[in-house]
Formats: sequence, C-alpha cells, structure tokens
Amino acid sequence: MATIKLHGSPFSTATMRATASLYEKEVEFEFVHVDMKNGEHKKEPFILLNPFGQVPAFEDGDLKLFESRAITQYIVDEYADKGTQLICKESKKTAIVRMWMEIESQRYDQAASKLVWEVAVKPMYGIPTDPAAVEETEGKLGTILDFYEKTLSENKYLAGECFTLADLHHLPTLHYLMNTPSKKLFDSRPHVTAWIADITARPAWSKVLAMQPNLSSK
Amino acid sequence: MATIKLHGSPFSTATMRATASLYEKEVEFEFVHVDMKNGEHKKEPFILLNPFGQVPAFEDGDLKLFESRAITQYIVDEYADKGTQLICKESKKTAIVRMWMEIESQRYDQAASKLVWEVAVKPMYGIPTDPAAVEETEGKLGTILDFYEKTLSENKYLAGECFTLADLHHLPTLHYLMNTPSKKLFDSRPHVTAWIADITARPAWSKVLAMQPNLSSK
Repeated sequence: MATIKLHGSPFSTATMRATASLYEKEVEFEFVHVDMKNGEHKKEPFILLNPFGQVPAFEDGDLKLFESRAITQYIVDEYADKGTQLICKESKKTAIVRMWMEIESQRYDQAASKLVWEVAVKPMYGIPTDPAAVEETEGKLGTILDFYEKTLSENKYLAGECFTLADLHHLPTLHYLMNTPSKKLFDSRPHVTAWIADITARPAWSKVLAMQPNLSSK
Repeated sequence: MATIKLHGSPFSTATMRATASLYEKEVEFEFVHVDMKNGEHKKEPFILLNPFGQVPAFEDGDLKLFESRAITQYIVDEYADKGTQLICKESKKTAIVRMWMEIESQRYDQAASKLVWEVAVKPMYGIPTDPAAVEETEGKLGTILDFYEKTLSENKYLAGECFTLADLHHLPTLHYLMNTPSKKLFDSRPHVTAWIADITARPAWSKVLAMQPNLSSK
C-alpha cells in the first residue's frame, strides 16, 4: 500500500480535522510536521502541495489533496471498510449528513473560527481581543446553536443516530472554544453539551490531542 | 415518483446553483417561488424548511433539505443514471472534484459573493458601493483566480476533462460578476475566460437564466 502522508501542524484546526478522520478510520499514516512558526507553509516544497499556503496537505500515492473537508471525505470513501463508517450508504441519509457538513462549513465554522481567533489565538500571542467582535460573533453562533439544540433534542448526533463526518468536522473549533469564556454558549444548551461530551470522548479524538506538545511545560 | 419541489427565488445565487443541477440531471421538479421582497423566507411555512431563513429549500418526498451544495450533491447521487454525470465514481477522481468544491465554497465564493454584494446588488438598490472593500476583495479573488488559470491551462475543467459540480457551483456568482467592472479579473486570464465561455453556454444554464423575469421591461 502506498504511504499516506498528512502534512500539517498538530495545533491547526484544519489539520486536526483531517487527523481525526484518519484515526477514526484506523488508517496508518505518516505525519509530516510543517513548521508554521518559520513560515514553511508559505514556501516550497509545501506550496507545491497547497498553492494557498495553508495546512494541511495530504498524499496517498499519486493523489495530492488539500482542503481538510475534501481530505476527510476521500478517506471515508477510499477506506470505506476500515474503522468507523462516518457516512451512510443510502442516498437520503447521506444527504442529511452532507447538509450538516454544509451547515458546519458555511454557518457554524464562519462564526466559530472567528471566535477562536478572538478568544483563543489572540490572547496566546498577547494581541488584544476585540470585545465588539466577540459579542457580535457570539450572537451569531448562539442563533446557529439554537438549531443544533433542537436537532440534538431529537437525535443523538447531528445527522441521526450515528456519529458521522458532520459531527467530526466540529471537533477542532469546539476543543479550542471549550477552554475560553465562550464556553457559556455551549453550556447553556443541554443537548449541545451532552453531544460535545460524547464526541470529545472518542478515542480517535484523544489521539489527535495527544499529538499536541504540552506548551505549558516549555 | 414523488414530486420534487425547489423553493427559492430565480435571482438568488444559491437557488440558481440548485436549479442548474436539476436541469443538468434532467430531473423534473416544481419551482415554488418564495417572495423574498415580502419576507416570505423569514416566516412560516418557509422557515419550517430552512430555520436559517435563506433560500433555497428542497423536498423530494419525505426528504427535506437546505444548503444549496448539499442539494446539488443529493440530486447527483440520487439521480445518478439521468442527465449529465457531474461527479466521478472512482474515489481518487471524486476526491479532486470534492477538493474543487471546497475551493469554491471556502475560497472563491467568500470573495465572489462579497463582490456580488458590492458591485451588483448594492447598485441595484441605490446603496453606495464601498471602493476600499471592492479593491481588497478583487485582490483576494485575483490571487485565487491565478490558481484557476494555472489549473485550466492544464485541464479543460477544474477537476479534469469533464464538467462537474465543481464547475457548476461557480455559475451563479460568475453570471452576476460578468455584468460588472469586476469582469476584468476574469478577462485578464485567458484560460479562465475560455472556461467561463464554455460553462455558461450549457443549455441547462440557459434554462436557469430563462427563469429570471426581465426586470428592465417592468
């Protein structure tokens, strides 16, 4: 079998999304660390894999891919018989999974990633947080999470009774936000809280987090 | 066969994306006009189909969907044997299509939709355009289109030699931008220009445009 390589940083949300899918599918891979502090993601050879200079990039033999959500879908399709299924074979159920994947990328992530920047990344680098941006983005995310709360009061997972890519794609931003004051957005919605507890407890996700060196001990 | 219904507006880019896929697949459907001028998309019954109050929404028997890119993928999966194929069955080729679908939604559309708002929608409503926002967004879109130009100098379409959903998803924003000064971004890139000429000449796309009443004659 051709060697699978994932090029990225263990702290990047997009890299974590791809890594989580590899662990869920129990697919062996080599992790190639891209030193973002030294700008390796903006230079050759990395930009030959992703001309937009963003992690992750992925190789499986001759196939070269970027865009984390395309990588996760390829892994699920190509390694259908391994690990957790993560998608449904019946077209109407698949449609619901894909609708939730779009809700994640088009709605949830637009707000969540902005909030991660404001309340998790900026403080780490000593950049002042913009309180007006935080308030506005928390408002948007809250409205989105109202629909999550309603859905999760009816189903165990976003697209039904099984854990799928639709749930998995949320894990990286949830991880960062749960360590910030914005955690209150999730805590105030009990079904969302139960869903987060469930999906963050998955062994594959623990493996993703174990790849992050402990910054506090440095 | 259950009746397929697409609820939307013939002027909405997201509705046009879904409609184009139905015409390409030669799937019969009923178009349910949502009167956005009177705010029907923000009220019941429409918000029972899409709680976020945005067109389009889609029904195929019991299945109810929103998010235009999830609707197009469902139509392609469910009606695989009809009309234009629009996706590949082989997983590595599908991966390239999906990567380009992500590039469209995560990169191209973020800039293109913002530009449509500034240079096409605002003038229509007599709202002043923000020249600084236009310049910044045109800069971003230009960088993205450089990669399109390189790709289209090697392949006829974004994901290879066949027209796929990856191309189709661009049609609505391209349509609006080609009638504005931002057309220069496309005109200055010959392979992008040839691609646009090819994909906008498709009969299915003409049917989508034919659904738009002629505003100038009103």
